[in-house]
Amino acid sequence: MKLLEERIRRDGRVKAGNVLKVDSFLNHQLDIALYNEIGKEFRRLFPSDRITKILTIEASGIGIACIAAQYFQVPVVFAKKSRSINLDGGVYTTGVRSFTHNRIYDIIVSAKFLSKDDHVLIIDDFLANGCAVSGLIELVKSAGAGIEGVGIVIEKGFQEGGRRLREQGIHVESLAVVDAMNAATGEITFRR
Amino acid sequence: MKLLEERIRRDGRVKAGNVLKVDSFLNHQLDIALYNEIGKEFRRLFPSDRITKILTIEASGIGIACIAAQYFQVPVVFAKKSRSINLDGGVYTTGVRSFTHNRIYDIIVSAKFLSKDDHVLIIDDFLANGCAVSGLIELVKSAGAGIEGVGIVIEKGFQEGGRRLREQGIHVESLAVVDAMNAATGEITFRR
Repeated sequence: MKLLEERIRRDGRVKAGNVLKVDSFLNHQLDIALYNEIGKEFRRLFPSDRITKILTIEASGIGIACIAAQYFQVPVVFAKKSRSINLDGGVYTTGVRSFTHNRIYDIIVSAKFLSKDDHVLIIDDFLANGCAVSGLIELVKSAGAGIEGVGIVIEKGFQEGGRRLREQGIHVESLAVVDAMNAATGEITFRR
Repeated sequence: MKLLEERIRRDGRVKAGNVLKVDSFLNHQLDIALYNEIGKEFRRLFPSDRITKILTIEASGIGIACIAAQYFQVPVVFAKKSRSINLDGGVYTTGVRSFTHNRIYDIIVSAKFLSKDDHVLIIDDFLANGCAVSGLIELVKSAGAGIEGVGIVIEKGFQEGGRRLREQGIHVESLAVVDAMNAATGEITFRR
């Protein structure tokens, strides 16, 4: 997605440790006009009328999923990350490794909001090692629901999450795939 | 807001301890069509052209703020709740008491995204004791920015957050104000 790549080049910043900061438009301050273009592009890439729900994970996936959901006309469900949430009734839960914070946390969805009749599109802002998305896929499978695909805004193509998911036959679409970045020069190489 | 009150009556559930569960449409599964009506109503209630930014707090405020922002054509900034976030550069931060989790947590906004030239509309899903909103107001004041108002989806009118904010001269608009609720009967009384 050209508009997104241009925006990443202009406003993204490459930091040591393969960190790409896009906090001025994607995940701290949110450019809603850009979010709308992202939402439209997800709809173009996932045109299926079978999709019944968009699943994402707090916090930075929520806004993207909500704006995108307007183009799908389905509800959004977001998985919560927590130890201490008061969800009554049954839940689906799984552990997810966070490399950023070097710990394992639980992600949780109330069982009321995913059923075997659902066809789920998973949306998130970043895909790197794929742990968060794999956790969301676990939750969908626990519910007996179908996975229609995974829509990602920025994939770090030099990490293995995207390859692993595609090898499992999951339909993954990433709007920008970063194949390399250089913290010294700030250079970002996108996949063609 | 009639549509919202009807939805709360239909799908909300009153639990012991003055808990109102609206997780099927507002803060776990998200009804985006309703979110759009909420966004339009906030715009009607805050028509000022001076608003430059919508500020909210993760996680459940984000979706509402993003959908609403489409009617204001301004960016959203969300405050993060955390101890361990890697925000480079200056930040604005303050402590907020959580009655739900019985602890104090920090809320943080990068100083890059709030400036003295900003006129900020604060949006959140719930207002009860007002601690989260007061924390957001602190962040706005730290930046030297102006507060245009506070837009709340559901205010618990029997708790004192709303009254306190209005006494400070803050323009608070709540789309539904619950004056009483009864966990035994499930009855909800809205303010007229």
